[in-house]
Amino acid sequence: MAGTASQGIFTLDKKICIESCSSVVGKKEGDGPLGKYFDEVITDGHFGKQTWEQAESQFQLEAVSIAIRKADIYKEDIDVICSGDLLNQCIGSAYGLRELGIPFLGIYGACSTMAEGMIIAALLAESGSADRTAAVTSSHFSTAERQFRTPLEYGGQRTPTSQWTCTASGAVILSERGKVRVVGGCIGTIADMGITDMTNMGSAMAPAAAETIKRYLTATGTVPEDYDCIVTGDLGKVGSRLVKEILLKQGIDITAQHHDCGEMIFDCETQDTHCGGSGCGCSASVLCGYFIPMLENGGAENILFAATGALMSPTSVQQGSSIPSIAHLVHLRKEN
Amino acid sequence: MAGTASQGIFTLDKKICIESCSSVVGKKEGDGPLGKYFDEVITDGHFGKQTWEQAESQFQLEAVSIAIRKADIYKEDIDVICSGDLLNQCIGSAYGLRELGIPFLGIYGACSTMAEGMIIAALLAESGSADRTAAVTSSHFSTAERQFRTPLEYGGQRTPTSQWTCTASGAVILSERGKVRVVGGCIGTIADMGITDMTNMGSAMAPAAAETIKRYLTATGTVPEDYDCIVTGDLGKVGSRLVKEILLKQGIDITAQHHDCGEMIFDCETQDTHCGGSGCGCSASVLCGYFIPMLENGGAENILFAATGALMSPTSVQQGSSIPSIAHLVHLRKEN
Repeated sequence: MAGTASQGIFTLDKKICIESCSSVVGKKEGDGPLGKYFDEVITDGHFGKQTWEQAESQFQLEAVSIAIRKADIYKEDIDVICSGDLLNQCIGSAYGLRELGIPFLGIYGACSTMAEGMIIAALLAESGSADRTAAVTSSHFSTAERQFRTPLEYGGQRTPTSQWTCTASGAVILSERGKVRVVGGCIGTIADMGITDMTNMGSAMAPAAAETIKRYLTATGTVPEDYDCIVTGDLGKVGSRLVKEILLKQGIDITAQHHDCGEMIFDCETQDTHCGGSGCGCSASVLCGYFIPMLENGGAENILFAATGALMSPTSVQQGSSIPSIAHLVHLRKEN
Repeated sequence: MAGTASQGIFTLDKKICIESCSSVVGKKEGDGPLGKYFDEVITDGHFGKQTWEQAESQFQLEAVSIAIRKADIYKEDIDVICSGDLLNQCIGSAYGLRELGIPFLGIYGACSTMAEGMIIAALLAESGSADRTAAVTSSHFSTAERQFRTPLEYGGQRTPTSQWTCTASGAVILSERGKVRVVGGCIGTIADMGITDMTNMGSAMAPAAAETIKRYLTATGTVPEDYDCIVTGDLGKVGSRLVKEILLKQGIDITAQHHDCGEMIFDCETQDTHCGGSGCGCSASVLCGYFIPMLENGGAENILFAATGALMSPTSVQQGSSIPSIAHLVHLRKEN
């Protein structure tokens, strides 16, 4: 709780709202079941740039620019922006945002980045050190494939448990204005159940999601029925089944409330994405394109957003290490 | 200022102090001019582990463990820890801290990470969402060389402007207890002067340091003479000369107060380190080993610590992009 220490659990005293948000996705994401909800679909994977890495940066810049326009503010009105991505040294963020001149906090939470950024952005506002803050993240299928797996030209076979890294970005701007309030949240702890299979991230991340959701429910004395939706980041099909099983064994049934951004963004059957979407941009774009507007429009009143991240690297996995995971949670509520 | 938005500049209302800090360095750093100030010198570059990456994680864990012991607390007493490093996907941090079970915020600020972590840790405490927070970072010569430059076995020649990545870690624990107070700080903006030479990071980072120092002095209405030391992260010899020149052209003379952790940690003449030390662990260990104890012991009263980071990756540089840089600043004052 604000004012009392509680191991990463917090509730905000100030009115801190989502002033605006935006989502920009690639062609495949635009062709998926949520296509009509995103602000922009960019059909050119290079986004007019020479490299995919530069394109990913452009996705972030575009997402922030749209959010700024929607809020009807100037970029100078944003006091701090929190951003990170999956690329080595988070270059998607640094190069994407360098021209904005906004005070910048680089973060790394793998696919949990959107929730982490929102938490830091909200707590900076709560601290009084900033009036208006922002968070953004991105991922790109082609940058992720060649960095984490194999060059696209290699045409590697994908395993049944694999997920498809989304080409997408999502951004939020937080201030005292807005219809959706950040009520509180939970900063995750690192979970590691010993999984070493880089093509089965959902299973690696599910225990982290379960732990964070349980901690927040326990600390706030709430039950799944108190929420319209309990959204996980990108566990995909396997991880989604697992998180529900883990929680059920502890007496918490989230079956009726659970949605997973990785399961939602693609039609896995027709889009050949195996277990679903992944990447920082997956949960960021689904949150900003689908769930936040749902709250704004009155389609839901209370949502828990628990984005999950796998904190390994190709190097650590090649060295035989298991995959540490984390989930950060943000509680969003419609302002009455 | 706390309570008013001011583009990344903040001062803290609450009493937030450095409860304890620690520094752990490698053999070469231990042999340098500051050797006697560090808490531990680990002569084995592998720190008993199988790989250098695992060793770097162990440096972080050791630094945090020492800081916990010095504060005479349990790890469970820390509400949140902020950590990042230079390794792809920040594995130094995730693997180093996973066994602690402390709520974890991954950050990426390259060599500015220590200041960034302290800023976030301090503002989380200021927000009331945490009573006791921590920040830690690390770097390792051997992990950095093979990731950013060439395998050590290759024996590549180093250019005159190059710096030597320190094998080191520094950690701080913040709470209301302690002799040194975090007064305020400045969240940096990204500066990019078009430098593309990865072996001349000091020049790439100097403009960011100058900008951040100037912004803080201007916002607080202070002058260099108000501080005993104005410490930059790891600009090295070339960057240190440059930051002073840039500020002097704007009418700000920091010559008498300026110290650079990269220049201080090695004797460049006898230790063959060219322009000095670098890496997240450089400024972190010098801050925690030398400057914070100096404040605690009354050797100084007011210090500005501006850690600098170069936000490029080998990929972005190979693609011809210039090097974006950032500097975050923390203002530390001896409690009377």
